[in-house]
Parts: sequence; structure tokens; C-alpha cells
Amino acid sequence: MTDHDTFLTAAQSLLGPRGFTADADLVTPWLTDWRGRFTGRALGLASPANTAEVAAFVRLCGEHGVPIVPQGGNSGMSGGATPDDSGEAVVLSLRRMDAIRTFDVEAQQITCEAGVILQTLHKLAETQRLRFPLTLGGKGSATVGGLISTNAGGTQVLRHGTMRAQVLGIEAVIADGSVFDALTPLKKDNRGFDLKQMLIGSEGTLGIVTAATLRLVPEIGGRAVLWAGLPSLAVARQLLLHCQATAGDTLEGFEVMPAHCLASVLDHLPDARSPLADNHAWHALIELVGDVTSADALPDLAERVLSSALEKGLLDDATIAANEAQAEAFWLLRDSVAPAERAIGPAMQHDISVPVATMADFVTAAAPQVETRFPGTTAVAFGHLGDGNVHFHVLAPPHAERGEWEQTQGKAISAYVHDLVTQWGGSISAEHGIGQMKRDELGRLGDPVALAMMRSVKHALDPSGLLNPGKLVPLAPDGTNP
Amino acid sequence: MTDHDTFLTAAQSLLGPRGFTADADLVTPWLTDWRGRFTGRALGLASPANTAEVAAFVRLCGEHGVPIVPQGGNSGMSGGATPDDSGEAVVLSLRRMDAIRTFDVEAQQITCEAGVILQTLHKLAETQRLRFPLTLGGKGSATVGGLISTNAGGTQVLRHGTMRAQVLGIEAVIADGSVFDALTPLKKDNRGFDLKQMLIGSEGTLGIVTAATLRLVPEIGGRAVLWAGLPSLAVARQLLLHCQATAGDTLEGFEVMPAHCLASVLDHLPDARSPLADNHAWHALIELVGDVTSADALPDLAERVLSSALEKGLLDDATIAANEAQAEAFWLLRDSVAPAERAIGPAMQHDISVPVATMADFVTAAAPQVETRFPGTTAVAFGHLGDGNVHFHVLAPPHAERGEWEQTQGKAISAYVHDLVTQWGGSISAEHGIGQMKRDELGRLGDPVALAMMRSVKHALDPSGLLNPGKLVPLAPDGTNP
Repeated sequence: MTDHDTFLTAAQSLLGPRGFTADADLVTPWLTDWRGRFTGRALGLASPANTAEVAAFVRLCGEHGVPIVPQGGNSGMSGGATPDDSGEAVVLSLRRMDAIRTFDVEAQQITCEAGVILQTLHKLAETQRLRFPLTLGGKGSATVGGLISTNAGGTQVLRHGTMRAQVLGIEAVIADGSVFDALTPLKKDNRGFDLKQMLIGSEGTLGIVTAATLRLVPEIGGRAVLWAGLPSLAVARQLLLHCQATAGDTLEGFEVMPAHCLASVLDHLPDARSPLADNHAWHALIELVGDVTSADALPDLAERVLSSALEKGLLDDATIAANEAQAEAFWLLRDSVAPAERAIGPAMQHDISVPVATMADFVTAAAPQVETRFPGTTAVAFGHLGDGNVHFHVLAPPHAERGEWEQTQGKAISAYVHDLVTQWGGSISAEHGIGQMKRDELGRLGDPVALAMMRSVKHALDPSGLLNPGKLVPLAPDGTNP
Repeated sequence: MTDHDTFLTAAQSLLGPRGFTADADLVTPWLTDWRGRFTGRALGLASPANTAEVAAFVRLCGEHGVPIVPQGGNSGMSGGATPDDSGEAVVLSLRRMDAIRTFDVEAQQITCEAGVILQTLHKLAETQRLRFPLTLGGKGSATVGGLISTNAGGTQVLRHGTMRAQVLGIEAVIADGSVFDALTPLKKDNRGFDLKQMLIGSEGTLGIVTAATLRLVPEIGGRAVLWAGLPSLAVARQLLLHCQATAGDTLEGFEVMPAHCLASVLDHLPDARSPLADNHAWHALIELVGDVTSADALPDLAERVLSSALEKGLLDDATIAANEAQAEAFWLLRDSVAPAERAIGPAMQHDISVPVATMADFVTAAAPQVETRFPGTTAVAFGHLGDGNVHFHVLAPPHAERGEWEQTQGKAISAYVHDLVTQWGGSISAEHGIGQMKRDELGRLGDPVALAMMRSVKHALDPSGLLNPGKLVPLAPDGTNP
């Protein structure tokens, strides 16, 4: 038998027919990321049933020198869960591990396995009048393990933080097959380095998250969804500060988009209407959320927030959604920006962030710089103003050819945008992670001190480099991948 | 010249007379921790003026193989800033680096150097109607760098989190003398391992924190301070849940103490009075805090919280402080528990935590276990119920000799308490850190997988072991200190 055959036989023996397959029909669907940008090859697909099986399988891979690509819902944005095309690695799916281990309603905590799907978690929390306060487009596929490994964001970060803020405890299998068990939630614990934090957002390169204890919050009692028309992004920033001061902790979302985005959406959605009668240079979508004790006060609060903002000249016009259907319609406009822009033609999309305080200045400066440097392009920025997280899209010149344009001018544009955001002290990956898509850009633009520290930590915890090789951690200057 | 002389000459030349001294009169005061439990020796005391000097000095120490003990206000509780008695190390004080680099009032963020004293930070925030939401007894000495390196806690963790939650950005000098600069606050940033989190709470063993960007919150508009008498700690837990449900985000403190503690305090403070007329088995001190927009509603809210709790049978009696003087008097009772218990006689104090949900059960079970195992002792637990953080004190039998008792039975008691809290899934250090005091206990009781990971990370980032050797990271099984 070849080495591969020996490994495959041992893997099948260890995990059984449900736990391991090399059948191309079963493996292939998981070798391409959902946006179709990355495709790899693999020896097989492992689907262990529990943490002990994950640990045993990791040890087996270590013995045979087989690299492991952990995968949750395969809904990542940066190719972090797609193997390379060497065919030497195995994909380790956590989807079969979807048990709820404990659910402490009183403490508002749930301990679940890595394969639990976000939407399932939402529904389970709702049955106990609780809420898991993180959501995103891929909620029907994204798993708890993937959300943790990528430190996922979404639209509720302004109030509730990223996935990091939801994780109270973690269990992970590390490179030598040991189980790191820090599931017990301790609000105060100063027993050394916070290893849990190191695993969160490490994209499976330091360990394979197998379970987590997550915090829940009280269910939503009600919400007020506001739409405002604004003269500029700078005024939007002032309006955000005003909302924070007057709406306090009820402020859960603050999204902005320029006129161009709203027009694209209205073109794209035949039944959609603009919330306001007149045209405005910028639009803000603002959501206030209360629990059962505070929801009744929301309509009055929303009125006060808007009327005082109007007095201060922080908006030109505004409206409050009259009912849930209208609130949903407002959000549909926001959620349709990306598909609407894509429908126009090819575009390079950038998931970047700068300090919240400088986001308006950054967009105001960067958009014309890009358009001047690449004539015919249109730069539009929209997104989570409250988080400093800009979705910075650069639309191709008219008649540019899809596919070809992205690979030529598109690449130069992305490098230029990444240069700009780095000069502004920002991040080339606000929420989508690095994966394989941005690894080289991180190597090019990342702080050399931070990169050296990352390589040291990676090498220390995964000396053989078997955990998700080629992802996240840029190569060393000598070309080695620690 | 000896090696030491060469090093001392180079250090003096590098940092100048204000920056380095080997004068025993100037060095000795910093060789003993403030509680007088640990004393060491040192080659000298370095007090660099800025980050570049720290970096150059770390490189110099690296060249000469001189270990470095970073020190802030020297107010730590675990001997983490005290050198060993070999006399081979230098103390590196950050106290001279006390500049405010930037203060963005609008964004509620401040970037300050490591030597800024907590009380100074409090006052500075107040000048702009803001608040730094972490405080503790040593605020007149404790520095920002020390608070970060120990992930300090205090009495406001329930609402605002530990120091970790206040740190938006960090600057640190790592073992090779490089400067890790992650000061820019990005709300969303997924560019790899969160190295900032790894440095927080690492007690100077992975890097020397030189500056930080910290979050501020709006100033306090008002507070309501409540005192409740309760039949048991289990009821206190139910009262806490009730307060969380009814007072929401205004709940900033929830402290508990048994009758024994209150009686000790009343004996100890001649002018103090019990807030309630009758005796109760347990007492809770509850603080609600509002900003300027919500403070007016606090008195009514406090009344509602107490009356609904009384209806539900969650307390026997309660009172609300009528004014600030009375509120201060209530807090003085709480803050005097430790000195009052110390006045009675020798005691072993344990800074431990368990999951919030099990704290009542833990105390109820552990106190009699300790008293049975060590006849004549009295076990009392008080502290931050909302954080699961118990100050677990075991008082010596009457007539035990101070000094001698702590070294004999006291040690056995501490080991037993640490065993118990570990069995309950808790932490042997909730907020005071490990330092040199608990390093061996962490080695004895810590999860072997976590300990191995810590050693690997320590060795990776400080291969020569020059950063605060002998602290925090337990020795490897072979006795080496990576």
C-alpha cells in the first residue's frame, strides 16, 4: 500500500463509514468555497462524531504527516476552509458535531458543539425568550466553530461586539491531538495567557474548535428602525455620536450608504421604494432595540432622537418605520446593496476598517483617489459606520469584461485600496478574515513585528505545520511556512 | 571589568543618570512588594523615558543575558513585579513614562503611556465629563501598564468587565527589543491572532507594555446604593438575577458578605452602624449607576427593584442610601471587611472564582468542608457575587500565632482551598494574577494541556527567558523554565 492508502485505511477504521470517506462524489462539494473563488483537492473528508474522535484523528494525521483543513459551514469569504490543490490534505468537517451539551437558561449561557448552525442557535435561544446577539447573511450554513475561528462580525457588532465577545468558554483540539478544555465560563480568571483569545480568530491554524460556551442576551422586546437622509458622511458621523449619547445602549445598528448605492438597489429591486421623498447624498439606517422592560419606551425615544438631531442640523430628513413590515423593507434596502452593485457589472469588494473616528475622512479622501488613479471606475463605500467597517467597492469602468477585468485592473485596485487603508492605520480585513485570499497581502502590508510574533506562535503550537497550512499566517521572509 | 560592570556602564550610558541607577538607596525600595511578602535583589533600576529607550534597554539586556523584571506601581498582590534573590536581574520601572499621547474626547478614547497612575486617569477623564470604568484599592499607585499586564479587576467588573475589556490598543516591547505597535483602536480587525489579548494578563513574561489606548464611558450622572438582608447566599444569587432582569445595564455592583463579616467590620470601625435593624445571615450591597440621561430615573428604579424583590421573597429587609454620605458609609462597610478580618487574627486569604451560577453552592459546600478538615478555623466568603469572584478567607483558630501559623497550617489550608476550587471548575486566581506567589500552585493544579501551550508560547516569544523569569509560567515537568 502507498502511504496514502495506509492513512486512508487507518482513517476509515478509526472513524467508520459515517466518519470518513474518500468518495469523490461526497468529498468534491466541500472542495470549493461557496463563492466559487477557490477550489482545492483532498485525500478525503473526515466527519468525526465527537471531540475524542477529532483528537484521535488529529493524532493519526500527525503520525502520517497529513495536513488538516478544518471546515464548518463552508460559508467563509476568504477561502480559509478550502484545501490547496496538492491533494495531500484532508478536510475535517465539524458539521456532524451539532449537539447542545448544556443550556443554562437562568445564567443565559449555552454550551454547544462546533457544528451547530447559527440559525439553529438563534431558534433555540428564542424558545427560552433569549437571543444569540450575532447574525450574518450565511446564518443558514455558518457554524459555531467557523464563527469562532473567523471571529465573525455582522450587523450587531456596534452593540454586542464580534464573535469574540460572545465566547465565554472554548474547547479545541490542538496540533498534538490534546484537548484544550476551557469551556467553563469564568467571568474572572487570571491564570496566565488567555489561550482562548488566541484560538478565536486563528482560522484553524492553531487548533480545531470543537465546542464553545456562548453568552445569550434577553430576547428583543421591540425595535425602532429609522431612516435618515444626510448631506455628507461627516454629518453621519456626528449623527452617530448624537445617537450614542441620546439612545445609549438601545443603539444596535448604524449603517450608511451613499446615494449611488440606494439608486442601484432601487434599480435592482422592482418593488422597492426610497424611504424618503427627496434625494440625499447619504443615507443612514439606524436601529434601536429594547428588551421587554424597555421596548415600550422605544417609539418615544426614536422620536426624541430624530427631533433633537434635526434641531442640531444633523440630518436633512428622516422617517421611522411605521411597522415591522416597513422595518424589514428598510433593512432589505441595506442588505441588497452588494447584490445590486454586483448586478451593475464587475466590482472589486473590500472588507476594510479604520478607526471609527476617521472613517468619514477616509472614505471622503480615498474614493476620489481611487477614481483618479483608475479612470472610469466608481468607488462606493457603505456599511457599518458604528464599527469603522467600510465595504469599499470599486466598480469597473462601463463595458469592462467580467472575469478578465478582476484579474488585471481589479488586482491593482485592491492592492491600492489596501495600501490606502494601511496608511490610515486600518485593517485590510475587518471581518472576513485572511484565509488564503489575503495571506500574501497581509505579508506585504502587515506590521513585520506582528507577523514575526504570529509565525513564532504558529510554529510553537503547530511545529509540523499540519493545521490549515497556507492560511492566515504569511510566509516567512525565507519562504518557509512555519 | 566584570560582566556586571560592563552591563551597568552600558546601561548608564544608554539611559543617563535619571534613567538608570545601581544606588542601593534608590533601588531597594522597589525590591519588596507592597504587602511585604516578597523581597528580591537586583543589579539596578532602569527608568526609561520613552518607548525607544525601553526597546534599546531590552536589546542591551539581551546582549548581556540580564533578566528584566518590569514594574509599574509595585502594588501587585502576587509578587509579580519583585525580582528573585539571585541579584542577576534588573527592575525596569515604567513609572517615568506617564505621558498622555492623545485624548479623543468625542470618541471617548485615551492613549496613554504605561506609567500613568489609575487615579490620574480617573481625574483626567472627569475633566471631560467621562469616566474610566475600572477602579481598585491601589488606584493611587497602580499604573496603566501594571493593570494591563495583570488584567486587573475591581468592583465594576460586573458591568464594565476587567481591564481586558477597557484596552482598545496596545504598544509593547517584546523580548528581542522590537516594538509591537497595535495602539490604533479598530473595532473590527481580523488580521490574524489577537496578539494584544495575549499580552494582556501575561504579567510581563511575553512583553513590556509601554502604552495603551483605553476606552472611556460617560460620566456618572447619579447612583443608587442599596443594602439588603438575606437568609442565604442561594437567595442572594436569585436576587442578583432579579436585579439583572429589572435594573438591566444600570446594575454596576453586587457584593455579598455573611453576618460574620459585617460583625467584624462593626467591631473594627467604632463609628460604623449596620444599615439594617435586624440581624441577617447574609448581606448584599447593590449599586445602580446611570449617566446624565438616566440618573433621574434611578431612585424610582431602585424602589421598584426592591419592592418587587420583596414580593418575590428574595430579601428579608432592605434600605436605599438616602444620600451620598450614606452611600459612602455602605461602601465603607464592604471595603473594611478585609482589614477587619485581619484585625481578628491570622487568616489565609484566597482570591478565587467559580462560575457565577455555582458560586452560592460552592461557598455553602466549601466553608464547612474547610472548617471540618481544619478544626478551630472559621471560613468566611465575601465579594463579587456578580462575577463569581469569592474572597475566601480562612481565619486561624483562636490564639494561633501570627507568622508561624500561616507558614504551617496556613499553607495546607490554601492547598486544600485550591484543590476544592479546581474540583468545582474554578480558578485559583480570579483577579490577583499568578506572579511568583501562585506559580507552583498553577503548575500543580493547572490543566496540563494549557500549561504546555503556555510554555510553548513563552519559549517562542522569549526564547532566552529574559522577561520576568520565574513568574506566571510554571516550570516544565523536567524543571526547566522555558
